[in-house]
Amino acid sequence: MVERAAFVGGCDGVAAVASARLIGEQPSGTIPHALILIMGDTVEATRAFDEVIEKTVPRVALIDTFNDEKFEAVRVAESLGAGLYGVRLDTPSSRRGNFKAILQEVRWELDLRGFSHVKLFVSGGLSISDVLELTDAVDAFGVGTGISSAASLDFSMDIVEIEGRPVAKRGKQSGRKSVLRCRGCMQDHVVPFGAGKACSCPGEPVERLVEVLRSGSLVSAPPAPKQVRARCLEELAEPGNNTPITELLGI
Amino acid sequence: MVERAAFVGGCDGVAAVASARLIGEQPSGTIPHALILIMGDTVEATRAFDEVIEKTVPRVALIDTFNDEKFEAVRVAESLGAGLYGVRLDTPSSRRGNFKAILQEVRWELDLRGFSHVKLFVSGGLSISDVLELTDAVDAFGVGTGISSAASLDFSMDIVEIEGRPVAKRGKQSGRKSVLRCRGCMQDHVVPFGAGKACSCPGEPVERLVEVLRSGSLVSAPPAPKQVRARCLEELAEPGNNTPITELLGI
Amino acid sequence: MVERAAFVGGCDGVAAVASARLIGEQPSGTIPHALILIMGDTVEATRAFDEVIEKTVPRVALIDTFNDEKFEAVRVAESLGAGLYGVRLDTPSSRRGNFKAILQEVRWELDLRGFSHVKLFVSGGLSISDVLELTDAVDAFGVGTGISSAASLDFSMDIVEIEGRPVAKRGKQSGRKSVLRCRGCMQDHVVPFGAGKACSCPGEPVERLVEVLRSGSLVSAPPAPKQVRARCLEELAEPGNNTPITELLGI
Amino acid sequence: MVERAAFVGGCDGVAAVASARLIGEQPSGTIPHALILIMGDTVEATRAFDEVIEKTVPRVALIDTFNDEKFEAVRVAESLGAGLYGVRLDTPSSRRGNFKAILQEVRWELDLRGFSHVKLFVSGGLSISDVLELTDAVDAFGVGTGISSAASLDFSMDIVEIEGRPVAKRGKQSGRKSVLRCRGCMQDHVVPFGAGKACSCPGEPVERLVEVLRSGSLVSAPPAPKQVRARCLEELAEPGNNTPITELLGI
Amino acid sequence: MVERAAFVGGCDGVAAVASARLIGEQPSGTIPHALILIMGDTVEATRAFDEVIEKTVPRVALIDTFNDEKFEAVRVAESLGAGLYGVRLDTPSSRRGNFKAILQEVRWELDLRGFSHVKLFVSGGLSISDVLELTDAVDAFGVGTGISSAASLDFSMDIVEIEGRPVAKRGKQSGRKSVLRCRGCMQDHVVPFGAGKACSCPGEPVERLVEVLRSGSLVSAPPAPKQVRARCLEELAEPGNNTPITELLGI
Amino acid sequence: MVERAAFVGGCDGVAAVASARLIGEQPSGTIPHALILIMGDTVEATRAFDEVIEKTVPRVALIDTFNDEKFEAVRVAESLGAGLYGVRLDTPSSRRGNFKAILQEVRWELDLRGFSHVKLFVSGGLSISDVLELTDAVDAFGVGTGISSAASLDFSMDIVEIEGRPVAKRGKQSGRKSVLRCRGCMQDHVVPFGAGKACSCPGEPVERLVEVLRSGSLVSAPPAPKQVRARCLEELAEPGNNTPITELLGI
Repeated sequence: MVERAAFVGGCDGVAAVASARLIGEQPSGTIPHALILIMGDTVEATRAFDEVIEKTVPRVALIDTFNDEKFEAVRVAESLGAGLYGVRLDTPSSRRGNFKAILQEVRWELDLRGFSHVKLFVSGGLSISDVLELTDAVDAFGVGTGISSAASLDFSMDIVEIEGRPVAKRGKQSGRKSVLRCRGCMQDHVVPFGAGKACSCPGEPVERLVEVLRSGSLVSAPPAPKQVRARCLEELAEPGNNTPITELLGI
Repeated sequence: MVERAAFVGGCDGVAAVASARLIGEQPSGTIPHALILIMGDTVEATRAFDEVIEKTVPRVALIDTFNDEKFEAVRVAESLGAGLYGVRLDTPSSRRGNFKAILQEVRWELDLRGFSHVKLFVSGGLSISDVLELTDAVDAFGVGTGISSAASLDFSMDIVEIEGRPVAKRGKQSGRKSVLRCRGCMQDHVVPFGAGKACSCPGEPVERLVEVLRSGSLVSAPPAPKQVRARCLEELAEPGNNTPITELLGI
Repeated sequence: MVERAAFVGGCDGVAAVASARLIGEQPSGTIPHALILIMGDTVEATRAFDEVIEKTVPRVALIDTFNDEKFEAVRVAESLGAGLYGVRLDTPSSRRGNFKAILQEVRWELDLRGFSHVKLFVSGGLSISDVLELTDAVDAFGVGTGISSAASLDFSMDIVEIEGRPVAKRGKQSGRKSVLRCRGCMQDHVVPFGAGKACSCPGEPVERLVEVLRSGSLVSAPPAPKQVRARCLEELAEPGNNTPITELLGI
Repeated sequence: MVERAAFVGGCDGVAAVASARLIGEQPSGTIPHALILIMGDTVEATRAFDEVIEKTVPRVALIDTFNDEKFEAVRVAESLGAGLYGVRLDTPSSRRGNFKAILQEVRWELDLRGFSHVKLFVSGGLSISDVLELTDAVDAFGVGTGISSAASLDFSMDIVEIEGRPVAKRGKQSGRKSVLRCRGCMQDHVVPFGAGKACSCPGEPVERLVEVLRSGSLVSAPPAPKQVRARCLEELAEPGNNTPITELLGI
Repeated sequence: MVERAAFVGGCDGVAAVASARLIGEQPSGTIPHALILIMGDTVEATRAFDEVIEKTVPRVALIDTFNDEKFEAVRVAESLGAGLYGVRLDTPSSRRGNFKAILQEVRWELDLRGFSHVKLFVSGGLSISDVLELTDAVDAFGVGTGISSAASLDFSMDIVEIEGRPVAKRGKQSGRKSVLRCRGCMQDHVVPFGAGKACSCPGEPVERLVEVLRSGSLVSAPPAPKQVRARCLEELAEPGNNTPITELLGI
Repeated sequence: MVERAAFVGGCDGVAAVASARLIGEQPSGTIPHALILIMGDTVEATRAFDEVIEKTVPRVALIDTFNDEKFEAVRVAESLGAGLYGVRLDTPSSRRGNFKAILQEVRWELDLRGFSHVKLFVSGGLSISDVLELTDAVDAFGVGTGISSAASLDFSMDIVEIEGRPVAKRGKQSGRKSVLRCRGCMQDHVVPFGAGKACSCPGEPVERLVEVLRSGSLVSAPPAPKQVRARCLEELAEPGNNTPITELLGI
């Protein structure tokens, strides 16, 4: 469920093999620390990977295992050259005084030696604020825990009308309702059912409620994760959606 | 998964029928607002429930639908008398200026009229702090959202030893390890594997790590939720566990 | 004194009979809880009031005594119909989780059933911030404690000139003075007496100091409360007075 | 009313002549700045006062008008000697960087020259915190504004019982009540009327409610301010009253 | 060193005779308290100074020794008249509740009597914030402690290139560098040595690094303090330097 | 002056050669980064140092230049064995997320392999709080900037007595004084000169003021830095000096 929600919400892919299968996508990821620990050297492990793995998989070296990222990045880039797609820094938190400075230092040393095509991947306990802070210096993020426990969305099922008569418990507004989105200002309005218009602006109202269940059965099959994701990205890109990301995330 | 975790962590029961079946327990709950809304009166709905439902189910009236809890509690108690087991307040948040004051007022009115056997049940968007604040005035809590999204516990699987030689990536301590709990001071100590003692106090050390997987297979079947719950409650009751609950919960 | 100050500062009326007489105004108010408690029902009490009281007094039902405001508002409106002028919510603070939401819910239920002419009156421990927050949803406020202990205005009487010679204790500016209000920028300036102008803008200065006592006797009779109130409202409406109300109130 | 409340609450006396008459006490105070401004010198003014005023009035020089308190204190003490009862510092706030340091400096200079019998009086815009901070260095305080606008005590008159039947609006506890003060722990308990005991400690309960009105008439004449003051001081001195003063004052 | 740094950073002069000699400037200052304490009166001491000291030295009276600044300022101005250049307030902190109010009061009294030519000098434990707050009311400041312990500027000497090959320890960017200031936006950019341009705006880049040492010897004699000060003031006045002073000072 | 003050205040030694000469001490320090950068490897540079430098100098390897401290510490310890006195971590701040964790990790790896005799030295932009936080995990600190700009101690020279008559400006206590330290409670008391006792406890008072200048000449030669340092450490160790260090440092 966690991987499905992350993918549906806009992530590019998921790493767990079983999760990827369940949502109908190819899993993606990079070399694990285990390979480097067992082979004993970052460059050797990356060359072994390069030798064995099919050529369609981009070569991303994991450069934080034994040595400092700055020197490993240069070593691995000098060894693989144009074939190196990116480097991944999973820098442990105890070595991360100013992660952005480390990333800019790696970028400087790679660029100074002609490797500006090498992308920077970052992972390891990243929070939303980390991503917002580092995004200028980084080409891709690998996020796990930080995305895995979103706050619950509270909702309840309530009776608001009985055989045409509006009725609701204290604290709930009675009567059947429409949720109209105004195409002009992109605001949603809750109005008595059948009220054709709720907005003072000239935009056209669109009913947002759709029938999902009828007499206890699904009206149609639920969409695939890929489709939900596409719709989510579409809605985020709608011109009326100009809330700053920090506000959406509540930070 | 949410219901399982809540039960395992010490909750007395769960309300969703499917969840209860999956963890091998009987579901439990009270009258819904729907019954009262359809019958139109709290006392009538409670009497109908009392007439029809088997006698082993305790009678708990839901008293926040139409009228103020203070008067409904008295009405329903005067109607059912000794047969009333408890009243449940699902008071909407817009009416909850000082929920403890409302509960104490209901308690006062019930006691003044001789219904001190009637228990108070509370539900509706309760947070941990609400429970801690109200616990003196309440006999049972119904909690949903507030318990359904605990913070993720961050962990990772790391290679720390290869064929007897300690090795670990930067930021991890190398070598196989023991986690010893001292029976004297109830502290846990991470020590090199085989170190028999880690504590300066005279307590006896107990190894806390157990083998779960061997060559990829489970060593034994996992315990039932009921057993995990029992062990969890046992550990919370251990004499050394005197951390205040607010600290355990990080609030 | 409290009622006089409230009236002079802009309140529409006062409820205490003796206070109203002292400031030369008619007292005003609504049905008390006592009547409803004694008759035992809000609708019955309101109908009795409607039957007995002269028709010039607007019918304002007090709807928070026994039941939830949402259902009582609908009941009393359906009983009195067009004759109902308003409803008053003296909702106890323990039931006031989100008072604005309660008011909007009452408004929704009244409007949904065709009673949009019924006004909402609010009372009960209201502070200045409550009034500022609720003002969009409310037609009139009844305020007591919140308005009854304004901060003291500190002032002192000092000798600043003796027979034409400027003299003052440490911490006081010596010499007779004028307080000039500039009609251009509406600022007040303290200047040596007789200085005709104090402001760099082209506005005309007006002396604000008036003689009140001469040789220990009042120069003229003090104005009636109604007159002081009129002048206070006039000054608040002056175009230069654009300080936000929150700043005037020091909140 | 302000002076009456201050006196009743424990102040030693009041300065306004009319107020003192209304509460049946002698007014008290010191030389005003006006005398010193008119005579032009602190020592001269104090000597004139000493010459003219009856001997029963203690000689308290006001030493902040023209010069620094440190030098004026020494000058006036050297001039009046044993006859000087005290000096009063009404130091303007613009000169009061560290008022305690000024007071200690005046004390040092007076003591160094043998005037340790001269008392220090302090006045001028003193707040409660000022009094708490300066109290070690000062013999008496003159307070005006800081004591003149205490927060209102909120109360209301409610019907809680009608012909023996408990009844009350939402938010109020119904039924006639006793307020019992336990002589053991000095706590007050609100209990149903006639409940003889409310406290788990072995202390004896004392009813705190007394009848003031019967059928609209006062049962007995109200006590004189002097008597109310005496009772207030007595209650503050009761052994159970060990709440710190800062908490009583809400600061 | 302290006086040199203060002068170089823009101060108009220094008071210590030895320091002034070392930086090649004339020392400057005012009458000390010692003179007034010994002569026993501010006006007498100022007149004595006026009689003896060469006429090129401006007459600045020190007016806080014995009496309140307000009265001393008037006394000394009436005694010296047009010959008085300024008054200095070294008001002790215990008398400095609202220093700006004291200064405005002195200004008012001097102006009221025709001494608007007399300047106000201020000294005594002034912090940066004091200077920013008082600057409208003051003609000159005498600052000691507040300017004598600026935060250290952290720097280190690092090898970044060895015989043309870029090399640097972890945390440092390798390779010889230029620091280019863009004449368009006045920003400084650190770029690889020889990179002619670093800025996206059309401004012309200027190299900021200059050779100071060659083979261990100074390339040219260091500039005099007066020259460093001139350049410092020039840079502060550059049009691109529009950072608010509070930000520059880190307050 | 900075090095002198640091040494006098209790530091064990100073690194700058010229400073050490001026205070009459031997300079002390470790291998610089320059040597490792030029030789290209930490172990090689440390072995070269070990080969060339006299045996009385302890061998302290600098382990943060190229690789991660954890692996460099093990490499250098395995190469020098018992001859290695300590390792120094000058870890750059961008790699210092949790410096204590890095130090504990280095300690764990060294101990696991039998090098518990190797000491940990730490340097690089350390503040007082860093030292207090790391002190359990570290054997010696190298501090520069953090100790080089202590807050100025404010003092002034004032006339307080003229030919036996006490006189002082406003804000200063007049008269010659003694500073008595009570041997009982170790408090210092400022008292009029000749007052033999100032303390209510039975401790014996000791005069703390000593004559330094007589008629403008030094009474005796000032003590050597070593002697001042000894006295400073002695005073810190006095039984009465139990102020916590955080309070002494004002943090």
